[in-house]
Amino acid sequence: MSGEPALMSAVAVAKAIAAKKLSSREVTQSCLGRIAQWQPRVNAFMAIEADEALAAADAADAALAKGKNLGPLHGVPMAHKDMYYDAGKVVTCGSRIRRDYVATTTSTALQRLKDAGSVRLGSLQMVEFAYGPTGHNVHYGAVRNPWNVDHITGGSSSGSGSAVAARLTFAALGSDTGGSIRMPAHFCGVTGFKTTVGLISRAGAMPLSQSLDTVGPLAQTVEDCALLVGLMAGADPEDPTTSTLPVPNYMAATTGSLKGLKIGVPTAFYVDDLDPEVARVLDETIATLGREGAEIVKVELPDQRQLTAACQIVLATEAAAFHKRWMIERPQDYGAQVLMRLQNGLAIPAVTYLEAMRWRGPALAAYLAAVAGTDAVIAPVAPMPAATIAESDVGNSLDAEAVIQRITKFTRPINYLGLPSLSIPTGFTAKGLPVGMQLIGRPFDEAGLVRIGSAFQRATDYHLQVPKAA
Amino acid sequence: MSGEPALMSAVAVAKAIAAKKLSSREVTQSCLGRIAQWQPRVNAFMAIEADEALAAADAADAALAKGKNLGPLHGVPMAHKDMYYDAGKVVTCGSRIRRDYVATTTSTALQRLKDAGSVRLGSLQMVEFAYGPTGHNVHYGAVRNPWNVDHITGGSSSGSGSAVAARLTFAALGSDTGGSIRMPAHFCGVTGFKTTVGLISRAGAMPLSQSLDTVGPLAQTVEDCALLVGLMAGADPEDPTTSTLPVPNYMAATTGSLKGLKIGVPTAFYVDDLDPEVARVLDETIATLGREGAEIVKVELPDQRQLTAACQIVLATEAAAFHKRWMIERPQDYGAQVLMRLQNGLAIPAVTYLEAMRWRGPALAAYLAAVAGTDAVIAPVAPMPAATIAESDVGNSLDAEAVIQRITKFTRPINYLGLPSLSIPTGFTAKGLPVGMQLIGRPFDEAGLVRIGSAFQRATDYHLQVPKAA
Repeated sequence: MSGEPALMSAVAVAKAIAAKKLSSREVTQSCLGRIAQWQPRVNAFMAIEADEALAAADAADAALAKGKNLGPLHGVPMAHKDMYYDAGKVVTCGSRIRRDYVATTTSTALQRLKDAGSVRLGSLQMVEFAYGPTGHNVHYGAVRNPWNVDHITGGSSSGSGSAVAARLTFAALGSDTGGSIRMPAHFCGVTGFKTTVGLISRAGAMPLSQSLDTVGPLAQTVEDCALLVGLMAGADPEDPTTSTLPVPNYMAATTGSLKGLKIGVPTAFYVDDLDPEVARVLDETIATLGREGAEIVKVELPDQRQLTAACQIVLATEAAAFHKRWMIERPQDYGAQVLMRLQNGLAIPAVTYLEAMRWRGPALAAYLAAVAGTDAVIAPVAPMPAATIAESDVGNSLDAEAVIQRITKFTRPINYLGLPSLSIPTGFTAKGLPVGMQLIGRPFDEAGLVRIGSAFQRATDYHLQVPKAA
Repeated sequence: MSGEPALMSAVAVAKAIAAKKLSSREVTQSCLGRIAQWQPRVNAFMAIEADEALAAADAADAALAKGKNLGPLHGVPMAHKDMYYDAGKVVTCGSRIRRDYVATTTSTALQRLKDAGSVRLGSLQMVEFAYGPTGHNVHYGAVRNPWNVDHITGGSSSGSGSAVAARLTFAALGSDTGGSIRMPAHFCGVTGFKTTVGLISRAGAMPLSQSLDTVGPLAQTVEDCALLVGLMAGADPEDPTTSTLPVPNYMAATTGSLKGLKIGVPTAFYVDDLDPEVARVLDETIATLGREGAEIVKVELPDQRQLTAACQIVLATEAAAFHKRWMIERPQDYGAQVLMRLQNGLAIPAVTYLEAMRWRGPALAAYLAAVAGTDAVIAPVAPMPAATIAESDVGNSLDAEAVIQRITKFTRPINYLGLPSLSIPTGFTAKGLPVGMQLIGRPFDEAGLVRIGSAFQRATDYHLQVPKAA
């Protein structure tokens, strides 16, 4: 093989290892080399376990030499958001409170990736307890955007976005409760897949909001994401909210064309008050999808502003309930913004929470009726590209919540409705910052999004761009 | 047949009709005769539909003459708590707000009893929106206890308790959210079966608290209750909370003896601060169960006081959420006590509600560990027999909630834990008021309770006593 192995897609590198064109050691060394180069600049990793990773890579190579292939990720090195429990490993959840906490179980999602043969590189930074969309972290420092280290990565899966963008890992689990996979995918120029609530087990993943939390990957390509989602999806007795429906073959969907598909463009809300460069990229993306054969139709959605508010009620309540004991016993160990936002959740009346929960069904029905006949809806992930770290560091100022609401206004409605949404790289600003778009699908129709996203990536090369080292 | 058909058990009268020893018309006339006699004194019925009932009885007789038997309740007349929707019929829910509301669907529980051949006599009084344990109703008047019309029936299934005790219906659906089946069963001297959360569909039944509401019958005998529960139990697509487990044959459990069974007697809480006559009946009941072959063992339960509080948090929150719109738009149409209690629910913080919800699992596990090895626990339904209507009419006074808490302290923990509980008549006070006891079982072990309750009723005749007409 020629070139730097770490620049390959997960699917390509897995094939190369399986075919013994590359060893897992070579691949892992390539990642570790880039990590050594990039980590001081982007702070994407929480823990780098170079020796253990190389030992695991050697074991993978040895197994393969004996004809033993564990699965579709055999020997592929990866690191994940530091909230997926891995028995015996520290899992900080981006917090001071869990700085030294050693997991005693392994999360189902992570276990399924391990069972498929992946090799652990370490763990990735994240926003404290996954509660924030920017990527700031007062305990471990802000994670930086590889495209411009003065800019934020987006959060809460900040390390996942940064590490995949800089090609330090072939894929990275994130979690998406209000936009935490799609936001860093958009700001960092990678592919991110927020899955339908109930598709992938949350067992052994740190909870933020049990009604909204979803597990999903960030990776170079839609195909990479399809591979990981297919491996992780499906019923889990440890998480009774998981669907028992059979898991489709998402990889089979990567080769479909856009012919015969209808893609909806909202007439309002998702197209309002956009940064001009985001608006331009949206237009270009729609044009590309049309050129590739999709029929573009307008969709009039129900008022989405109320969905954002309802999402925040559910999220703030459930997060506050989960954190209440620590808020009482260890308030000084939280960052000021995270503590303030958690405390806000204590003031929500129970009836308001129940109303927000009960509106989910009717709101979903209204949304699905509005998009009937379409295969997906295209929308920006956020109204703007990545802000600078300095300008977005609002701490616990009075307007912090308003700033956060503005960033997440296009992602939260999707969490509230529980829908799948695939964020794909779709362009760059004049200053070279990535811009992504989300393809929003019907419940459990991840395959439909894979088909559209893959076709878009065959027609474009935004997802192949790599930020330059200093 | 000799004697008054209305005095027979539901099982016996159904057999007599099926064997053409009695016609449905004769039986229905017998009930209507007693209703005419008792209704002015006890106010148990909300609506009496004599002509329709006789027409339905004639139709049942005609069908039978042609060899068509609809099921185990063919031709058996019944009336139910006026909160089970019956398409085309007014369903008041004991309220002024729904005084003229005509149901457009039929509740699953009721439909299953109809499918088994039962005949509708009318509908039964209840506490306004099922929110209260005494049986007072400012809109339709208090329902009165047939054993002494100066006394309450208990609620909220007040009409069900009164009508079954006076033998105006062969059985009556109640609903039990905090004790609303067991309380009138205890105060009125009938058998009442609160079933496990998830056993019987709540679809088409007025909601009070979706986490706690259960459907169940009041009837003369445990065998009657077993028949009705068996007909109503089982999965319902209209209520996704229903269990998909197969429904046991409860009737088969009515013949078992107590040999080899262990019945637990709590060492605290359920035996504390009892009215002396309730304490005496508890002792007598335990002695009878022992004589019949059960092994009586002491059980040390976890602190049950917190369960009562947790139950009230869940109940008040969910009731307030359901009623919020009416509370805003039509406050003047509620009774003062019901409105006050609903408004109290608006003040509960969402985190407190979630904490109460999340504690259900651990609290149930602790309870089940404490009763491990027993087949049921015996306990009073309430610390006292039925109070007078005058002394228990606390309206919306400042101490109303405290009075209500005292009455329901032994029933609410069971609702919170979701357990089945069978209330059986076990004696009388010196003044002739009934006293019942509850047999508390394991989740979905209704059959175990049927076995114990039936054996007790074979050994005693409390359930066969009938109040005297004036």
